[in-house]
Amino acid sequence: MSDAPGRSHGRKSIRATLQPRDLLSETPELVSAWQARVVTLFPGAFPGILGESLTGKALQDGLWQLSPIDLRPFGEGRHRNVDDTPAGGGAGMVLRADVVSNALDLAMAGTPEDRSDWPLVYLSPRGRRFDQAMARRWSRAQGVTLLCGRFEGVDQRVLDAWQVEEVSLGDFVLTGGEIAAQAMLDAAVRLLPGVLGNAASTEEESHSNGLLEHPQYTRPADWAGRAIPEVLLSGNHAKIEAWRRAQSEALTQARRPDLWARHVADRDGD
Amino acid sequence: MSDAPGRSHGRKSIRATLQPRDLLSETPELVSAWQARVVTLFPGAFPGILGESLTGKALQDGLWQLSPIDLRPFGEGRHRNVDDTPAGGGAGMVLRADVVSNALDLAMAGTPEDRSDWPLVYLSPRGRRFDQAMARRWSRAQGVTLLCGRFEGVDQRVLDAWQVEEVSLGDFVLTGGEIAAQAMLDAAVRLLPGVLGNAASTEEESHSNGLLEHPQYTRPADWAGRAIPEVLLSGNHAKIEAWRRAQSEALTQARRPDLWARHVADRDGD
Repeated sequence: MSDAPGRSHGRKSIRATLQPRDLLSETPELVSAWQARVVTLFPGAFPGILGESLTGKALQDGLWQLSPIDLRPFGEGRHRNVDDTPAGGGAGMVLRADVVSNALDLAMAGTPEDRSDWPLVYLSPRGRRFDQAMARRWSRAQGVTLLCGRFEGVDQRVLDAWQVEEVSLGDFVLTGGEIAAQAMLDAAVRLLPGVLGNAASTEEESHSNGLLEHPQYTRPADWAGRAIPEVLLSGNHAKIEAWRRAQSEALTQARRPDLWARHVADRDGD
Repeated sequence: MSDAPGRSHGRKSIRATLQPRDLLSETPELVSAWQARVVTLFPGAFPGILGESLTGKALQDGLWQLSPIDLRPFGEGRHRNVDDTPAGGGAGMVLRADVVSNALDLAMAGTPEDRSDWPLVYLSPRGRRFDQAMARRWSRAQGVTLLCGRFEGVDQRVLDAWQVEEVSLGDFVLTGGEIAAQAMLDAAVRLLPGVLGNAASTEEESHSNGLLEHPQYTRPADWAGRAIPEVLLSGNHAKIEAWRRAQSEALTQARRPDLWARHVADRDGD
């Protein structure tokens, strides 16, 4: 990060009353836990649904730790302004480079040099698309810092100076980065050791082996005149496995020719 | 929906104490408002962040209405079980067809015949990928019903019977459909008339014209030794427009060759 602003640049502007410990978390950091730090104007939106179900249980069990960092106190002036009008004109507002940089000083404090051990990501529709491989990479890092945009975006200079990686949830536009951050954290956290009760289930699901998942059925055996496919009730595990594989392949071929082409290339390359 | 279970099939099982009005909303439905109904085991996760910022203001102003429908009361037995083990074996649990169908009877009550006027969607990594064009289509419908999965998925028969459209947020796996539902609702709701203060801003942004958005800058003019590009301070609107367009094209070409190829094909086809 040779051209990032020096540490002293940021420290100057952190107000004396705000200590990293206060801003990051009410509890001491758990040394072994996977860390998620989220810079946002809506810290109250976290953990949101990440506090429920398996990700919520894992959060309570200390398997990961979530630290929302409120961007507002880094704002300028009496109103703590964080944004201003776009240079050159246009609709909306742009988050200021100086304000965001000061928040990043805190959000990256104490993180490893090597960004592959701690990605620094701006959620943006201009970024590289998030996928299961990225979720897996994040889950193997020590943590991740996510910057949530609002309005028209963030001043490009802070993205350049910090060499921030831009990542997109998909080819659509959201009001802000917060929901994208929650989606990506959910995808990464569920891959952390111990989060899912049954590790086998992450191996069979869609996108884990490059294929879409086969259809699922459960009781009752007959519902509204529709029966569960006989093979699934046969008890013949080899046949069931073959049927599921065939369904998975047919579904992928029909719905996602792009994934299917990649799958065939990988298979034939082996 | 010729092969959907008849209305009477579902009604039998709705408990007498649960009236549509109670389950759908505490306030009467606003005739003109865009409707979002979400079938979920975590109704408390809604509106979540959709209750903040512009989507939250629009919700309060009655520009759209959100009705989480709790799947739990439709469950079977004393424990209101909603799921069971997969037929044919395997990890995880599958949501039951009968339970989900009864919830859909309520969640589709009073909706138009034509699904393009009211999409019925299951959030699933096996589905067609959500994009800005789909967000736009949804925003032009009267409303949308979203079914959130958990565990290993939903019994295939209920998806077949109701001809449910499967839509995926992207090529990754989430703990459940709730975050995906929030992302898609955010993308659709911000396109409703009156939700964004300045309509111009949805036209310039990424994915609206098939290109990624140009970089943005704001005050201060000089930050950490980095200046705003001169052209943006020139006041020459034609030059600014041309610069932004060139940046947009270069960025799309570099980061998203797939979008660029489509853009060139569209342009040359005109």
